[in-house]
Amino acid sequence: MLNETKSTFNKKHCRTIGKSSNLSILADSMFNAAIKAVDVVLNVSLSRRTVLCSIRHYCKKSPRKLRVSEALEGSDVGSNITVEGWVRSVRSQKDNLFVHVNDGSCLQPLQIVASSELNDALLTFGSAVEVTGCLKQSPSRQQPVELLADRITVVGGCDTLEYPFKIKERHGLDYVRQYPHMRCRTNVFSSMMRIRSAASAAIHSHFTERGFIQIHTPVITSNDCEGAGELFQVEPSGQTTEPDKNFFSVPAFLTVSGQLHLEVMSGAFSRVYTFGPTFRAENSQSRRHLAEFYMVEAELAFTQSLEDLTKVMEDLFRSVTEQVLDRCSEDVDLFHQRVSPGHRAVVEAMLKKSFTVISYTEAIDILNRSSHNFVFPTTWGCDLQTEHEKFLVKHCGNLPVFVTDYPYDLKPFYARDNTDHPLHTAAAVDLLVPGVGELCGGSLREDRLDLLTARLAQAGMENTYDWYLDLRRFGSAPHGGFGMGFERYLQCILGVDNIKDVIPFPRFSHSCQL
Amino acid sequence: MLNETKSTFNKKHCRTIGKSSNLSILADSMFNAAIKAVDVVLNVSLSRRTVLCSIRHYCKKSPRKLRVSEALEGSDVGSNITVEGWVRSVRSQKDNLFVHVNDGSCLQPLQIVASSELNDALLTFGSAVEVTGCLKQSPSRQQPVELLADRITVVGGCDTLEYPFKIKERHGLDYVRQYPHMRCRTNVFSSMMRIRSAASAAIHSHFTERGFIQIHTPVITSNDCEGAGELFQVEPSGQTTEPDKNFFSVPAFLTVSGQLHLEVMSGAFSRVYTFGPTFRAENSQSRRHLAEFYMVEAELAFTQSLEDLTKVMEDLFRSVTEQVLDRCSEDVDLFHQRVSPGHRAVVEAMLKKSFTVISYTEAIDILNRSSHNFVFPTTWGCDLQTEHEKFLVKHCGNLPVFVTDYPYDLKPFYARDNTDHPLHTAAAVDLLVPGVGELCGGSLREDRLDLLTARLAQAGMENTYDWYLDLRRFGSAPHGGFGMGFERYLQCILGVDNIKDVIPFPRFSHSCQL
Repeated sequence: MLNETKSTFNKKHCRTIGKSSNLSILADSMFNAAIKAVDVVLNVSLSRRTVLCSIRHYCKKSPRKLRVSEALEGSDVGSNITVEGWVRSVRSQKDNLFVHVNDGSCLQPLQIVASSELNDALLTFGSAVEVTGCLKQSPSRQQPVELLADRITVVGGCDTLEYPFKIKERHGLDYVRQYPHMRCRTNVFSSMMRIRSAASAAIHSHFTERGFIQIHTPVITSNDCEGAGELFQVEPSGQTTEPDKNFFSVPAFLTVSGQLHLEVMSGAFSRVYTFGPTFRAENSQSRRHLAEFYMVEAELAFTQSLEDLTKVMEDLFRSVTEQVLDRCSEDVDLFHQRVSPGHRAVVEAMLKKSFTVISYTEAIDILNRSSHNFVFPTTWGCDLQTEHEKFLVKHCGNLPVFVTDYPYDLKPFYARDNTDHPLHTAAAVDLLVPGVGELCGGSLREDRLDLLTARLAQAGMENTYDWYLDLRRFGSAPHGGFGMGFERYLQCILGVDNIKDVIPFPRFSHSCQL
Repeated sequence: MLNETKSTFNKKHCRTIGKSSNLSILADSMFNAAIKAVDVVLNVSLSRRTVLCSIRHYCKKSPRKLRVSEALEGSDVGSNITVEGWVRSVRSQKDNLFVHVNDGSCLQPLQIVASSELNDALLTFGSAVEVTGCLKQSPSRQQPVELLADRITVVGGCDTLEYPFKIKERHGLDYVRQYPHMRCRTNVFSSMMRIRSAASAAIHSHFTERGFIQIHTPVITSNDCEGAGELFQVEPSGQTTEPDKNFFSVPAFLTVSGQLHLEVMSGAFSRVYTFGPTFRAENSQSRRHLAEFYMVEAELAFTQSLEDLTKVMEDLFRSVTEQVLDRCSEDVDLFHQRVSPGHRAVVEAMLKKSFTVISYTEAIDILNRSSHNFVFPTTWGCDLQTEHEKFLVKHCGNLPVFVTDYPYDLKPFYARDNTDHPLHTAAAVDLLVPGVGELCGGSLREDRLDLLTARLAQAGMENTYDWYLDLRRFGSAPHGGFGMGFERYLQCILGVDNIKDVIPFPRFSHSCQL
């Protein structure tokens, strides 16, 4: 009985709500009856009803399909078009029906105007529709064009009672974060994803235009770049991590940085970059940390000074931000108006003025001279905490600031020794930005074989890094590089407080949804 | 004593071999004497000698720097320029010195012509140099321009005896694979990396231009997309994988596909793609498999038929290949001439003709009718093996062929049921290509809630995938997508036999170097 009822649907069905022909009305009523039959037989409630379609190879061709963004451009006014997307609002008046349809191609929906006869119980907020009709100039100032529909097909219904989002309601970021598989359907998060995609494209084109070669540095690595802990280890599922049974014959970890691999490549291509996921097994649920996050890293051979590096970092920040503001102006405005009012001025100031450069020693001096009560005290040699970084940014006019020449002992083995007794610093630089603190970190790399060998020997790592020493033995060139946290970059330009709101599927301790 | 000798180098040193001033000659001889002193004191053999430079902030500015590719364009003929790179050959004649310098910006080196007085023992194959002089048109036909050098500075020497590559020798791919940190310095592998970078850029621009949103699908996931084994599990280093102590509170794996996450996003943006690393814990050291490899995946909502998908797949293959052939013609020629002679014709034929489409049922028919002796027998319902795939490609004129509508039972739960008793197929498609076999796999996704629920229930997975069912409960649209193996794509267009030669740092069972 069940199979029989199901088989009645194995035909060419699309639910069409149309005024155009008696046939479609007949099809409609037959379809309604059939849907009810299935509801009874399968005991599927109306709320879980989905419009059924069988093999789709044979659906008849429709008029030219346009994305909503293309339709809104207006160059197809007067044409018969089809638009597909999801209903953002339905308003039924005595004669007319107004429907807003969004397909994710842009923030704005397309207004559909139809006879109220085309209304239907399935045509609700959140439902998926195909709409065909004539594109016209809109008489209203609220939108440039509208679609006079002669056919509206609901291809997938949406029970508005069970749907987590409500029509015309502004759901907070905290609320939508609970629905990782649904939040891309809200305006704010869909704007975020478009901005993230555009920023990502801008990063690639920025480097490509400047002659950098993109390197896919590996995710799985036997290195521990920073010499720090907080690594994820990797083994085939169901196997132990006993040393003699490792899948890779050695312990293997998720990368914390592609730097060492980029250094290899900078010795052949001079300018290289990587842009991909990096990992920290940090037991933190803060608004600043993720277990999986994206980093842009670049490495440049024949780099003579920190100034060479800071120029590249500043240039990257400016050019990517300008491209994002240009290509996603509507989406960015949504953030600057609704999520972080007043943040636009901060971003514009960053783009207008040159970034400040101070040395670590000057930074400590500024912090020591301030009357601010810091939780962590500051003395020469201490690491800068987020509170210090944010203070320095404020002190420099709420503008980005480079801090250079950190204490040698604070930096990893690869940072270039400034050999500047008695302070003893390394040629390392961090970029601190408003709202975020540390956005980028970089350094010149120790290219002198004797100094590097001595430092590795001190740490008992000269055998592990013999391959790294080879890079200095054969055709070594002075070089340096940096990394920029991509999520922090997005937080910085959009004024978003929680890092979980700028990544599609956040991973952090005790959370790995989907 | 040791520290004292080292400290004599903490000055502004660059080794300059120049005829321009007495000062530089003096500096040179002082430097030579100092180097020898260090050799004695530190007992560093000449072969491991690296030219030392201290703080680089203060090096004097040089003439305009050009990449080798920029210099070769010829528009700076007559200008004084500086080029930095690595020596590919040195030829000393009575009066003149000829040096070829490559900086990875292109395959071709720049020819340096200098007085033989500028020659030096440190100026060897593999050494890193800075060269300044006047760019001139070359009298020879072998290159458009050459640099008449008045200064050659060796910034990093290279002991040619210990260096694994020899001047003017063509090292085979098997040989260079032994030096993962060095092989980018060979012509063939550096061409490969430039092609890989260009192909990657072409993929991004292909999708961006067509209105696709890029999604960074997560590497760490709690899903097992294919329902298959061979997963890598992830836990913080040094911790057990006991279920109640998981870092993420649930078992977490490295992704095998971003498809399910893309399906989430296709329900908001209609067209989405991802391009990143995926993982299989396959215990294989074959020329076809890696534990970490790159996949391009796309998902399209409102996709009505497999034809909609095959069009997108074919379009991607064509447009990316055309861009790569256009932008990397020299590098591609290197492969088509030296690595896989005759392969150019195969690639050109692929681009000229439309891809063939056959059904799985037709494919089985072709295989059954052939006189070829297959290792694996073929009956309707069996999986196609590589030997079958390669035969089908040959059978279709050594051209790409789509195989559609596979047996329902061969495909994962998400593939759309064609409900076509008695054969019972799913709307899935693979793209097979010359030399490689399967390059892409895709399907329409089951969008009918009742069929999907039943199939998941059958596998006992309806609770795990309740969020996935939500996608069909709320505004479901017919959709489909596919994935393309990026390394296999590169093998296909370049004719490279071993997958380890098309990725910067290959990872496979028992191997995770660097």
